[in-house]
Amino acid sequence: MSDVYQKIARAQAEYARCIDDDRLEEWPTHFHGACVYKITTAANYRDGLEAGIVFANSRGMLTDRVSALREANIYERQSYRHIIGQPSILSEDTGEVRSETPFLVARILQDGDTDIFATGRYLDLYKLEGGEVKLNERTVVCDSSRIDTLLALPL
Amino acid sequence: MSDVYQKIARAQAEYARCIDDDRLEEWPTHFHGACVYKITTAANYRDGLEAGIVFANSRGMLTDRVSALREANIYERQSYRHIIGQPSILSEDTGEVRSETPFLVARILQDGDTDIFATGRYLDLYKLEGGEVKLNERTVVCDSSRIDTLLALPL
Amino acid sequence: MSDVYQKIARAQAEYARCIDDDRLEEWPTHFHGACVYKITTAANYRDGLEAGIVFANSRGMLTDRVSALREANIYERQSYRHIIGQPSILSEDTGEVRSETPFLVARILQDGDTDIFATGRYLDLYKLEGGEVKLNERTVVCDSSRIDTLLALPL
Repeated sequence: MSDVYQKIARAQAEYARCIDDDRLEEWPTHFHGACVYKITTAANYRDGLEAGIVFANSRGMLTDRVSALREANIYERQSYRHIIGQPSILSEDTGEVRSETPFLVARILQDGDTDIFATGRYLDLYKLEGGEVKLNERTVVCDSSRIDTLLALPL
Repeated sequence: MSDVYQKIARAQAEYARCIDDDRLEEWPTHFHGACVYKITTAANYRDGLEAGIVFANSRGMLTDRVSALREANIYERQSYRHIIGQPSILSEDTGEVRSETPFLVARILQDGDTDIFATGRYLDLYKLEGGEVKLNERTVVCDSSRIDTLLALPL
Repeated sequence: MSDVYQKIARAQAEYARCIDDDRLEEWPTHFHGACVYKITTAANYRDGLEAGIVFANSRGMLTDRVSALREANIYERQSYRHIIGQPSILSEDTGEVRSETPFLVARILQDGDTDIFATGRYLDLYKLEGGEVKLNERTVVCDSSRIDTLLALPL
């Protein structure tokens, strides 16, 4: 259990580092199995709308998303910094762990200004395979309902 | 020791989650034994005023506080996100652990704007009972001296 | 390994606490061996300029820096709060560990306003000595290129 907890924390750190380093092409490789990725708002989530903003369920869809970002060339104009809190283990079954983890993403604009881009929580499903934790599903629940540019960024 | 460290980190994550999920009625159940809860500012704390803003020393007082919040209906208009750093163990005696933990609380306003609501540190006393850590006392030392609305929110 | 990971996380928490508590005179004691301390920006770092803003390679230089801060009397007018993420272990050789750790530093101005002062990552070299991790080199890579006052503060 304690071991799983630490493995999840590390997997989340690597995930965030991949985005903050602008290695977006690697981002889809953090997903395994069902490869489910959703973004929604807290308000939508309360209403049962888990995929209110973004839904993907294959690595291909995640890869397409990155390509679209690169073409739109929006992402390059700013950078991001994820600060990720302690995960809470919600359930642990044979080979499956569900966790919830708070996050804050700061955005650094080209002129140097830094603000809070998003806060929220990751609702994750990890599967244990060969002693490793593999992210199978991530639902990103953003606290704010104002999400214009969220569409651009993997969270 | 390492075990205690991780248990404290987890207890703090659950505490924060309870507040950020707006499950305020559960908040008092995170306190045990002496049930001491104080909020002060760094400036007051330096002057020995540990309970400069809020002082409670029973679950009943904490419950009353939540009732007041619900009646005032202030809390619902915004939401909060706690990001909690690594705890530092200050002392560990037989069955008692004192720790200090930095925190940042972001506030998400109804229009979607997000700002830093408070930063500071938790000065906690945990007692070990049956292999679990139980929060007995929490002094919240806020870095900022401007604390208008702090009175409204459990930190 | 897991042990080293936790030891690094704790050493980083103590380092941050030293600065946020305004115990700057102790700050140089967190460095050992080569005592290398650099601050640069992400843009400079990409260009191979690791010491774009600050460079020190002895405790004496770090101590001088603190003295200069105290004389300039700039530091006292505001306070800081470091929120440090999970470290990623980049490499682990016999007795040497390289890690990367994201951070966010909030600044609390005297009037109570709080903003994001800096975000970035620590690139650290720790040496293992007698079961302890000793910080030998820290390169602070700030995300933002606007770093006026960074010159004043240990990060």
